[in-house]
Amino acid sequence: MSRLLQDAVNELSKLPGIGRRTALRLAMHLLKMERESVLQMTESLARFRTDIRHCAQCNNLSDEDICPICADAARDRSTICVVEQVGDLLSIENTHQYRGLYHVLGGVISPMQGIAPSDLKIDLLIENIARGGVREVILAISTSVEGETTLFYIMNRLRAFPDVKVTSIARGIGFGDELEYVDELTITHALANRREVE
Amino acid sequence: MSRLLQDAVNELSKLPGIGRRTALRLAMHLLKMERESVLQMTESLARFRTDIRHCAQCNNLSDEDICPICADAARDRSTICVVEQVGDLLSIENTHQYRGLYHVLGGVISPMQGIAPSDLKIDLLIENIARGGVREVILAISTSVEGETTLFYIMNRLRAFPDVKVTSIARGIGFGDELEYVDELTITHALANRREVE
Repeated sequence: MSRLLQDAVNELSKLPGIGRRTALRLAMHLLKMERESVLQMTESLARFRTDIRHCAQCNNLSDEDICPICADAARDRSTICVVEQVGDLLSIENTHQYRGLYHVLGGVISPMQGIAPSDLKIDLLIENIARGGVREVILAISTSVEGETTLFYIMNRLRAFPDVKVTSIARGIGFGDELEYVDELTITHALANRREVE
Repeated sequence: MSRLLQDAVNELSKLPGIGRRTALRLAMHLLKMERESVLQMTESLARFRTDIRHCAQCNNLSDEDICPICADAARDRSTICVVEQVGDLLSIENTHQYRGLYHVLGGVISPMQGIAPSDLKIDLLIENIARGGVREVILAISTSVEGETTLFYIMNRLRAFPDVKVTSIARGIGFGDELEYVDELTITHALANRREVE
């Protein structure tokens, strides 16, 4: 096999979920694309990996020292929504409903994977809150065992700030979800947290 | 969203089968990879797109003017296996059973997609055969309508060489395939081409 093709396939296979067959298909697609378009792609990916930074305030991905959300004077600085990762932040931003700040932990506590609280940006969160002005911290962390561990750890740390309200996003049946296919834990939760219909 | 992240996601989304969600996941994976490893990947892909060539003899992808297979003196030059694309050639090579040469058409005749015989490397195949020394041409082309059209077109062109035997790879039930799930056309073909058990 051509060395150039072999290298391209090997490199593409390093990406998660991309086996050798898919890598070959992607490589063939690159040949069908305009040369300039491929170079634009590879340069953009290289620049992303080299130049991207983490916001010094909230740990969101950022082009600058402070991310656009933290820098936005129109955002409500009294509310911080804590998420595991940047993808979660983007999902919430896409709703256009939340106007507070965020805090990206960068993962969840996982003794199994050797991720301790000190590996996450929890100290930075506490520092930000200690600076004052925060009235509510919304914990939007996944309901996995690791997520719950992280949630309890952060709740414990937040006891130092009795004036700060700590909330967790609502769990329940998603819109469009078929009850038949929803897991028992979610249904139990949704039943326990039922609301009177007005 | 960070412009660098936005660009990376947009560029990755240009690849086939990669939506925005997957593109975001891949971008996040790039951040977890070593910087050097990402640059090696992007450089390899850029070099592949820029430097790859088509073998002047068989149209296979190649780093040089003539591909390693055509350049290999140990290969049997009396047999040419005609395939649609480079991926097919690689699949056959992976069996380590075939020692002849190949010819990569670069697609199939498709009036629907505006692909005429002149868009494929059929003339080059005919030229190679006209030079003499070829005893058998194996057609390993897919059984789609376009594939069959291409097969008949090439068979017609090969009538000019009555001494060259033209064969087609066997169609039948694949090893490990459940008869229950095999399509009717394949079963019909497999029945018609049944062999006496020795």
